[in-house]
Amino acid sequence: MGMNYGRRVERLQRLMGDGGLRAFVLYTRENLMYFTGFDRYESTAYLLIPLDGDPILYVTRLDYQRALDEAFGCRVKRCRRPLNTLSRDLTALGGGSVGVDDLPSSTYTKLQATRRVNLKPSDRVVWRLRSVKEDEEVKLISEACKIACAGMEAVWEALRPGLRECELAGEACRAMMRMGSEEQSFPTIVASGPRSAYPHGGCTRRRLRKGELVVVDLGASYMGYKSDMTRTFVAGRPSDRQVEAWRATLEAYTRGLKAMSVGVRAGEVDREARRVLEERGFGRFFIHGLGHGVGLSVHEPPYITKASGDRLSRGNVVTCEPGVYIPGFGGVRLENTVLVSRDGVEELTRFPMELC
Amino acid sequence: MGMNYGRRVERLQRLMGDGGLRAFVLYTRENLMYFTGFDRYESTAYLLIPLDGDPILYVTRLDYQRALDEAFGCRVKRCRRPLNTLSRDLTALGGGSVGVDDLPSSTYTKLQATRRVNLKPSDRVVWRLRSVKEDEEVKLISEACKIACAGMEAVWEALRPGLRECELAGEACRAMMRMGSEEQSFPTIVASGPRSAYPHGGCTRRRLRKGELVVVDLGASYMGYKSDMTRTFVAGRPSDRQVEAWRATLEAYTRGLKAMSVGVRAGEVDREARRVLEERGFGRFFIHGLGHGVGLSVHEPPYITKASGDRLSRGNVVTCEPGVYIPGFGGVRLENTVLVSRDGVEELTRFPMELC
Repeated sequence: MGMNYGRRVERLQRLMGDGGLRAFVLYTRENLMYFTGFDRYESTAYLLIPLDGDPILYVTRLDYQRALDEAFGCRVKRCRRPLNTLSRDLTALGGGSVGVDDLPSSTYTKLQATRRVNLKPSDRVVWRLRSVKEDEEVKLISEACKIACAGMEAVWEALRPGLRECELAGEACRAMMRMGSEEQSFPTIVASGPRSAYPHGGCTRRRLRKGELVVVDLGASYMGYKSDMTRTFVAGRPSDRQVEAWRATLEAYTRGLKAMSVGVRAGEVDREARRVLEERGFGRFFIHGLGHGVGLSVHEPPYITKASGDRLSRGNVVTCEPGVYIPGFGGVRLENTVLVSRDGVEELTRFPMELC
Repeated sequence: MGMNYGRRVERLQRLMGDGGLRAFVLYTRENLMYFTGFDRYESTAYLLIPLDGDPILYVTRLDYQRALDEAFGCRVKRCRRPLNTLSRDLTALGGGSVGVDDLPSSTYTKLQATRRVNLKPSDRVVWRLRSVKEDEEVKLISEACKIACAGMEAVWEALRPGLRECELAGEACRAMMRMGSEEQSFPTIVASGPRSAYPHGGCTRRRLRKGELVVVDLGASYMGYKSDMTRTFVAGRPSDRQVEAWRATLEAYTRGLKAMSVGVRAGEVDREARRVLEERGFGRFFIHGLGHGVGLSVHEPPYITKASGDRLSRGNVVTCEPGVYIPGFGGVRLENTVLVSRDGVEELTRFPMELC
C-alpha cells in the first residue's frame, strides 16, 4: 500500500490553519480510513487531528489491537469511554474552534458541551482533499470497478424469468467477493417490473417475469475503495417503448460523458444529459441528478446535479447515471464510474451496454 | 403481512403524551419501516408523528412513487427539500417539545433552528416499543435466522485452507440471498488467523491457513428483520489451546443462555457467562458485552452488558455471544439469536456448534 497518511494529515492541518480551526474530530468510517488506514468497521472510534503534531485515535478495548496493528501515523488511545477522553483532551488543547465531520446528533450534542470548545461542522474541508484522488487511490478504485463488472456479468449470465431479485443479487455478491471485494459498496439493487421505476428500489423476493425491465445497480469495495455501476436488462423480448426509453437513456449517458472535462461546471454536465431526455419526451421521468463522486464512500462530492456549483477537477472519480422512471411502466438507469483526467474522461467500469 | 402500523403509531402517541412531546420526528431507515412499512433504503426521508392524527411522510420525488405504493397509515408529502417542509409543518403545529431519533448532526442543528421548537432526543421512547417483538415480528426474525443458518452451512461446506476470507463471505451471501434474504444484515465477518482476535475484523483478501481459527459472523434480512450468528472453525486439526478456548466459550454461551429469563437483569446474565471464562483463565480476553437485541436493526436494545440496567422482557429477541480474543494467537466467538418467551429462551439460529 502506497498511501501517505502523514501527507494527508499535513494537508488537512494546513486547511485547518486557513480556516481558524484548532483541531478536527473525525468520526466516519471512511474519514478514519483516509487519515490512518484503520477500518473501524461498525465500532465507535474518533480521530483527533490537532493543528500541530500527530493525530490521536480513540478506541475501546474492542478495537485496540486492530488499531495498533493497522493505524498509521497516529497515537492509539484505549479508552473506557472514547468520547469522554476525547472531550477532556480537547479542553486540554485549549479549546477554540473544532472542526467535525458528520457525527450522529447524540455525539454532537455531548461534544458540544465540552468546556471552551466551539464545534464547527466542516465536512467541506475534508472533501476538498478526498474528492481529488491520488494515483494510488485511482488504482484501487479501478480494481473495485473491474470487480463490479464481474458482478454484473454474473447477473447477466444468470438472468432469466422466474428467478427472484434477491437470487440475482446473491450471484453478483458471490462473483465480486471471489474477485477480492471485501464487501459490497452498498446493498445491491435488483428492481424488476414496476419496481424498476423506483430509483432506490433495493431488492426483494419478487420473481422476474418475461419481458420486464430489470435495473441492476451494484458496486464492490477494494481495500476500502468503492465502485458503482448500473445496467438495465430485459429478460426476453423488449417492447418498443422499453427500447425507446433505454436508447434515450443511453444517449443521455453518452452526452453527459462527453460534457465532462476538467474545469466544467457540474450543473452544466447534468443539463447536457437532461436535455437529451427532454428532447425525447422523457425529461419529467429523470428525477435525480446525473452523478456523484466515488471513493472511500460510494456517494460523495462532487455532486453532478442541476443546481450544483461544483466544478470538475482532475482526479475526480464520478458516476454518470441518467435514468428514466415511469410509474407503473418501469424504469431504466445506465451508470458507469469514470475518472476525470487531464486527457478527458475514462470509463472505469467497462462492461457492455446491452438491453437484452 | 400482518403488521398493524396504526396500532404502533397509537402506542407511540400515548408514550409521547406521557412524556410531554407534541410531535416526534423519525429519521432512521428502521424507524420509518417500523411505523409505516416504507423502506427508505439509502434515501433521505422523515416521518412526523403528531400527538394526534395521522403521521406525515416527507420524501423527495425520488421516492414519492415507492412511498405511495408501500407506506401505510400516513400521508405522503412530496417535497423539494423535505427538511424545510418538515420544519414549516412543525412550526404550524405550534411548536413545543419534539422528540427525535438519532439524526445526523447536520440535520439536527438545522431542525433545532425551527421557530418555537425544542428538540428532545428520545430514542428510548421508540425502543420501549421496538424491543418487545410482536408475534408477527418473531416469525420474520425466525425466518431471517433460518436463512442465516443456510449461510453458515455454505461457509462450513466451502471451508478449506487456501481460500480467501472474502470468498467464504461470498458463499454465505449467495446462499442467504437464494433463500430469500434481501440483503445481509451487516457485511459478513470472516476473520482468520491472528485477525480472528479482532472482534470487529470484517473480511479481507487474506487466505486461510491450515490449523487457524476462523470466526464467521453473519446475518440475513427478511422483510427488513435481521438475524445474527457466529461460529468459529478450524480448517484442519485444532491445537489444544484452540480447543480449550473454544470449549470455554461454548460453556460461557450455555451458561449465559441458561441465565436468561423474563425479568432477569441483563447485567446478571452477562456476569454469569463472564464468570465461566474467568474461571477458565480467559476472563481478560472477553472484551465486549454478552449480547444485544435484534429486530429491524441488528444491534438494538436491550444490551446485555456488565453495566446494563435493562431487564429482559417477554418478546425480547437478543444474541448470546461470548468471545475470547487473544492478541497474536486468535479468537473464538459463538453466537445465536434467541427469543425470550414466557416459557424460557428459544434458540432461533439452530446450527451445530462444532469447531472442526
